[in-house]
Amino acid sequence: MFSEETYTARRQALKEEAGKGILLFPGNGESGMNYRDNWYPFRQDSCFLYYTGINNIPDLFFVIDVDNNTEILFGDDATPEEIVWTGTVPPLSELAAKSGITRVRPLRELEGYLGKHRQSGNVLHFLPPYRPAVTILLAGLLGIPVTQVAENSSSALTRAVVRQRSVKTAEELEEIRKAVNITAAMHTHAIRNARAGRSEKEIAGELQAIAIGGGGNISFPIILTRNGQYLHNHASEALLREGDLVLCDCGAETAMNYAGDMTRTFPAGKTYTSLQKDVYNIVLDAHNTAVEALKPGVLFRDVHLLACSRLTEGLKALGLMKGDTEEAVAAGAHALFFQCGLGHMMGMDVHDMENLGEAYVGYTDTLKKSTQFGLKSLRLGRALEPGFVLTVEPGLYFNPFLMDAWKAEKRHAGFINYDAVDQFRHFGGIRIEEDFVITSSGKALLGDPLAKTPEDIETLIAG
Amino acid sequence: MFSEETYTARRQALKEEAGKGILLFPGNGESGMNYRDNWYPFRQDSCFLYYTGINNIPDLFFVIDVDNNTEILFGDDATPEEIVWTGTVPPLSELAAKSGITRVRPLRELEGYLGKHRQSGNVLHFLPPYRPAVTILLAGLLGIPVTQVAENSSSALTRAVVRQRSVKTAEELEEIRKAVNITAAMHTHAIRNARAGRSEKEIAGELQAIAIGGGGNISFPIILTRNGQYLHNHASEALLREGDLVLCDCGAETAMNYAGDMTRTFPAGKTYTSLQKDVYNIVLDAHNTAVEALKPGVLFRDVHLLACSRLTEGLKALGLMKGDTEEAVAAGAHALFFQCGLGHMMGMDVHDMENLGEAYVGYTDTLKKSTQFGLKSLRLGRALEPGFVLTVEPGLYFNPFLMDAWKAEKRHAGFINYDAVDQFRHFGGIRIEEDFVITSSGKALLGDPLAKTPEDIETLIAG
Repeated sequence: MFSEETYTARRQALKEEAGKGILLFPGNGESGMNYRDNWYPFRQDSCFLYYTGINNIPDLFFVIDVDNNTEILFGDDATPEEIVWTGTVPPLSELAAKSGITRVRPLRELEGYLGKHRQSGNVLHFLPPYRPAVTILLAGLLGIPVTQVAENSSSALTRAVVRQRSVKTAEELEEIRKAVNITAAMHTHAIRNARAGRSEKEIAGELQAIAIGGGGNISFPIILTRNGQYLHNHASEALLREGDLVLCDCGAETAMNYAGDMTRTFPAGKTYTSLQKDVYNIVLDAHNTAVEALKPGVLFRDVHLLACSRLTEGLKALGLMKGDTEEAVAAGAHALFFQCGLGHMMGMDVHDMENLGEAYVGYTDTLKKSTQFGLKSLRLGRALEPGFVLTVEPGLYFNPFLMDAWKAEKRHAGFINYDAVDQFRHFGGIRIEEDFVITSSGKALLGDPLAKTPEDIETLIAG
Repeated sequence: MFSEETYTARRQALKEEAGKGILLFPGNGESGMNYRDNWYPFRQDSCFLYYTGINNIPDLFFVIDVDNNTEILFGDDATPEEIVWTGTVPPLSELAAKSGITRVRPLRELEGYLGKHRQSGNVLHFLPPYRPAVTILLAGLLGIPVTQVAENSSSALTRAVVRQRSVKTAEELEEIRKAVNITAAMHTHAIRNARAGRSEKEIAGELQAIAIGGGGNISFPIILTRNGQYLHNHASEALLREGDLVLCDCGAETAMNYAGDMTRTFPAGKTYTSLQKDVYNIVLDAHNTAVEALKPGVLFRDVHLLACSRLTEGLKALGLMKGDTEEAVAAGAHALFFQCGLGHMMGMDVHDMENLGEAYVGYTDTLKKSTQFGLKSLRLGRALEPGFVLTVEPGLYFNPFLMDAWKAEKRHAGFINYDAVDQFRHFGGIRIEEDFVITSSGKALLGDPLAKTPEDIETLIAG
C-alpha cells in the first residue's frame, strides 16, 4: 500500500469537497461461484481501497462522518477457529493504522451507528452499488427496499470521488506502469506462443498465469481469439490455424489493484499476409495519429473522431469506403468497421470508475454522450487533463452479421462499397491498444514499449 | 453436454419424485468484480445445468410444471447489437432442444407466468439460493422480502435433487475422471516446478493455466502454500524456501463443470527430510487404511474415525500423543493435529451440492453431524452407496496457535505430550487426497494414479 499520508490526504480532500454528511464506503465481500463458500478470487472495491488501503479482507465497512470529522472502520478480526482454516491475519486496528484510521468497531455495531445518524436526520451518502450483496446490505442498513437503493445513491459523493480518482498521482502512475509491464509480458508470451495448432484457452491460461505470478490477477477477462471481429469475444477451445489473425486484448492488475490494458493482433503463423499487413497499417496509422493528438484541453471525443477519419482514409484507399471522409465520419458510416470507442479511463479499474457512471467519468454536464451507433460506445469524451490515464485502441472489425444487416438496408451506401466489403467477411479484426498518461504538455506512454509494427511483431515471433 | 435422453430422464425422475408443484431453477447471471460489467468467469448453477445441460449462457430461468407436465426455459436470444460485442450464439430454442426442452419463452414473460401460478394457489418450489442476485430475483418474482427467501426454499425439492445428484452415472464418472486427470496434471507440474526461490503465486498461476487449457477452469481457489498447517491457506507472494514442505490442494473442473480435487505435499527442495518422511508416512497409512474401508453400507463417519485412529497411532509412535487410541479419538484429542473431516462428496461441485445443505447431502434424518471440534467439520457422515463420489484426504496440521491455546488450558493433556508437540510448531502441514467412486462391492480410484509415496514423489522431482 501507499504511505499513511497518502490515504489521510485523500480522505481530507474528500471531506473538504463534501463539506458535510456521512459518507459510506462498503467493502466487498467474498463472492460464491457455485455455492456460497466456493469463492471467486476476492476483489476489494476500488473506492474502499482508495480511501483505506485495506485489501484482501472481506466484509469491512468504512464510514466518514464529515460533520464530526470522524472516521470509523467497521469489521471483525479473525476468530481463533477461522485462523485454523485461513492462517493469521494482522488485527484490523493495525491495518487501519497504516492508512491513518484510528477507530475500528465490530461489524455488529454498524446498524445501530447508522440508525442513530438516520434518526438525527443526517444524510447518508453512498455510491451506486454494483454487487447485489452490497445492495441487500445497504437496503437493510438504510431501511429501504432493494429496488430503491440505486436511485438513493449520492450524485454529490459520486462527483467528488470521480474528480479525485480521475487525476493520478506520481505514485499511482508508478503502480500503473508496473501493471502495464506485466501486461506487456503477457503479450510478449502470446505473440511468441500463440501458434497454429494450440487452443485459444491454452494460451489464455498461460497469460493469466503471468498476471497471477505478477502478484495480482488479470484486470478483466482475457480476449484471445481468432475471431477478433467480435469486440469482446473471449478465449474458446477453438484451435488456432495457419493464416489466422489472433487478437489478444488482456491486462494485469497489480496486488494493489492498479490495471494495465493492451491489445496486439498478430498472425498464428509466422508472418502476416500482405492484406493483413495493409489493414494492420491502417489501424496503426489511426493509433499513432490519435496518440499524437493527446494533450490537455483537447476533447477525447475529437481524438476519437480523428482516429475515425484516419481509418476511413485507409478504408477508402483499400476500396471499402468512398466519398468525403469527414462527411462519412459525421454520418457514422465508418462504424460498420469500427463499432466502438477509441479508449477509456484506466486506473484501479480497467474501465476506471465505470461503476460510478460514464456520465460523470467520461462526460460532463455540458458534453453528453452521443446516441449514434459507434459514438455511443465511446466511454470517454471530455477534455483531457494532466494526470488522466487512458487507453488508445482503434481497430477495424469485419463483422459479417453487421455487413449483411447494413447491406440489406443499404445503410450509408454512398460511403461504403458493399461488394468489396463482402470479400472481407472472413478477415477477422485488428486492434492496437496502449496506455497513456496526460502530462502538462502532452502525453507519455505507460510502461516499456512493446513491438507494435508488423515488422517488429514478426521479428518477435521469429526470435 | 450429455445426450438428450440423459436430461429428459433426469427431469422425468425428478417429476415422479416431486409428484406435484412448480419447480423453479434459476440459472446464474454474470457476476461483476469491481464494476457490473467486469465479470468473473461465468459459472452456471449446477442444478440448472444438471437438468438443462445449457452452460455458458447467463440469465436463464427453467421451470418445470409437474402438474401439467410442462417445461419452459425462459430467456432471451442475443440481439444483433450484442452479437457485435460477443459474436454469435446458437438460438436458445436450439440449445434447449438438445436436452429435450421444447418450450422457450422470453424472460419478460416469467413474472406474469409465475404470477398466474401464485394466484391459482400453486406451490412454487425452489432451492436455497447462494447468490445475492438470485435472492433478489426470487424475492421480486415471489413477492416476498429478500430476507425471507432462504426460509421459503423447498426442503422437499432439495431432498429430491440431492437424492438424484448423489448417485453418479457412468457418463458422469467418465467426465469426473477427465477432471481428475487434468487435476493430476496440475499436481505433476507443481511437484516438478515448485522449487525453492519461486513464489507460491507463480506456481498457482501455472496450475490454473493447466486447468484453463483443459477446457474448463479451477474447481476451487488453489491452495499452494508453505504454510500447509492452515487448512485453506491460499497461494501468496511468499517465496518457497529450501526445507519447506509445500502443500498443494487443487482441482480442475471440465467444460461441463465436473470437478476433480487432489492434494499432494512435497518438498520445495529435492527430498523430504527424515522427519518429514516419518510424518508423511503416518498420513499415508491413514489414507490407505481409509481407502481400504470404503464400500457400500459403511458410514463415512466411521471411515473418518478409522483414519483418526491410524493418525493417533502414528502420533503416539512419534511421541506426540499417548494413552488409549480409541479413547483419544472418542475424546477428539487427535483434532489438535487433524482439525477437519476426512472427505466430502464431489461431482458438479467440488463440495458436491454444498449449496443444498450438509444436513441433506452428508447426513440423514437419523444421523446428525457432531458438534465436537474436528468431527463438526466432517461434511460427509452417512452410509455410502454405489455411485457416490467422494474425496479421501486425511492430514496432520501443526498449527502453533491451536497448540498454544490447547496447551494453555491443558486440553486433553492425558492424550497429548505438549512438550514434544512444541518442537513441531514450524513443521507445517501434510495432506494426501484422492477421489473415489463407491462401486457395488467396494471402491475405485478416479483418474490415473499419481505418485503418492515419498519415494515416488522424490523420483518425480528428480525427473
